[in-house]
Amino acid sequence: MCQLLGMNCNVPTDICFSFAGFQARGGVTDHHRDGWGIAFFEGRGVRVFLDPQPSANSQIAELVRRYPIRSLNVIAHIRKATQGEVKLENTHPFQRELWGQYWIFAHNGNLLDYAPGFDGRFVPVGSTDSEAAFCDILQCLAAEFPDGPPSPQALHAALRRLAIRIGAHGPFNFLLSNGERLFAHCSTRLTYIIRKAPFAVAHLADQDVSVDFSQLTTPEDRVAVIATTPLTDNETWHAIAPGTLLTFRHGAPEALGDTATIAGGSEAEAGSV
Amino acid sequence: MCQLLGMNCNVPTDICFSFAGFQARGGVTDHHRDGWGIAFFEGRGVRVFLDPQPSANSQIAELVRRYPIRSLNVIAHIRKATQGEVKLENTHPFQRELWGQYWIFAHNGNLLDYAPGFDGRFVPVGSTDSEAAFCDILQCLAAEFPDGPPSPQALHAALRRLAIRIGAHGPFNFLLSNGERLFAHCSTRLTYIIRKAPFAVAHLADQDVSVDFSQLTTPEDRVAVIATTPLTDNETWHAIAPGTLLTFRHGAPEALGDTATIAGGSEAEAGSV
Repeated sequence: MCQLLGMNCNVPTDICFSFAGFQARGGVTDHHRDGWGIAFFEGRGVRVFLDPQPSANSQIAELVRRYPIRSLNVIAHIRKATQGEVKLENTHPFQRELWGQYWIFAHNGNLLDYAPGFDGRFVPVGSTDSEAAFCDILQCLAAEFPDGPPSPQALHAALRRLAIRIGAHGPFNFLLSNGERLFAHCSTRLTYIIRKAPFAVAHLADQDVSVDFSQLTTPEDRVAVIATTPLTDNETWHAIAPGTLLTFRHGAPEALGDTATIAGGSEAEAGSV
Repeated sequence: MCQLLGMNCNVPTDICFSFAGFQARGGVTDHHRDGWGIAFFEGRGVRVFLDPQPSANSQIAELVRRYPIRSLNVIAHIRKATQGEVKLENTHPFQRELWGQYWIFAHNGNLLDYAPGFDGRFVPVGSTDSEAAFCDILQCLAAEFPDGPPSPQALHAALRRLAIRIGAHGPFNFLLSNGERLFAHCSTRLTYIIRKAPFAVAHLADQDVSVDFSQLTTPEDRVAVIATTPLTDNETWHAIAPGTLLTFRHGAPEALGDTATIAGGSEAEAGSV
């Protein structure tokens, strides 16, 4: 299985601290050695850094860790291959364009007996179940909303239906973003934290590194960090209930009308942090 | 206007030497300061590095210059903005997927009174004439060949027709690749060189840097480098005749049946190097 990391903020923020801990899981503190990638939205544009090498000794990961790219939405992934060879085309996150927006997707899980039909609008380039699921999602969104982006409520509802259908094939934890919102679906395991004033010192779980966010932020800043497992060992992370799709915007989960759960649980912690 | 750099090889080759000279044009030896980008195909996958900062003092460009990524097809671009603000979403090269292949596009020129209609299959994210032309091309290819990639001859012919139509709006030098072939269209200015055995020493025109390719290659290696203007000052570069679309494969222009020119010239130098 893989590791997911996402960030959604109300002001452009760099992810250097969180990425430092995450990067260590790609071959140092954990066994996710089959490549890694990270996507930064900046305005309408997106930058994706991909590397089929382990992140723990990747020169590109070193650059990302040291070079502060400020972004409202970030999605990163460290791969432990289940389906698809260790190749660049199978490295998450994946990118496509829909409605004149770039979309970014990364998946943790393993979908079995899953062979969606593609009409040609979005076709997988690699051989992972994950990219197939991404193309499936976008194909369905394009078909349901051919005239452009729907309301946030309609988009959330459509993604929940798709998560239920595809998630029937196996673990389907994913992060998805169009640069405006970050969608986080927990199928088996996904956690998040909201950092906001008063900011404190955070200490990484995977490396002996601390950062005092009060020195780096303004009182209005709000940052949501979503990860497969908590990245710090002195903060309270919230487990997202399996079967839940959260939509993050401006650094917090967004209430989108019907926020009941997908599969019978409760919408975890939304608005309570 | 902008600067283009492309590379097409018969064995995976790094572009560090050529990129060193190219990078200097982004703010040191030339005035193309409005961002830069480079795409490396590796197998079916592609890595795109984008930076809205000038390449001459970009940390990401430094990484690309020093970190040998071996690729059969590379497209790079340094931007001097004509249309569209200096923003990430307007930074070349652009990426889309068609027929389960990634496509990469970069443009040097300026298209006026050009407003193609988009049916939703490919929609520009940014505001450049270049990305609009890329979406126009892919939309037309998808419509003409809905069942998948056509023959190389049919693809070449379709691209020539599109280059004529779009090029009627202004200078339309471009590089386009699907990872298998690299298409180079000269509208006003584009040059190329084929490096093959016996390899010699090359010296950059933009920096006092030389490389002895005989030390880095095998006798079977063949590398085509395409650039807006020659990158070295001790080799013979071939000017591509305006109105010509060349298809490069395995490090050489490919004869694709009808290789007469687009606009009355002659297919420049193909096979003569």
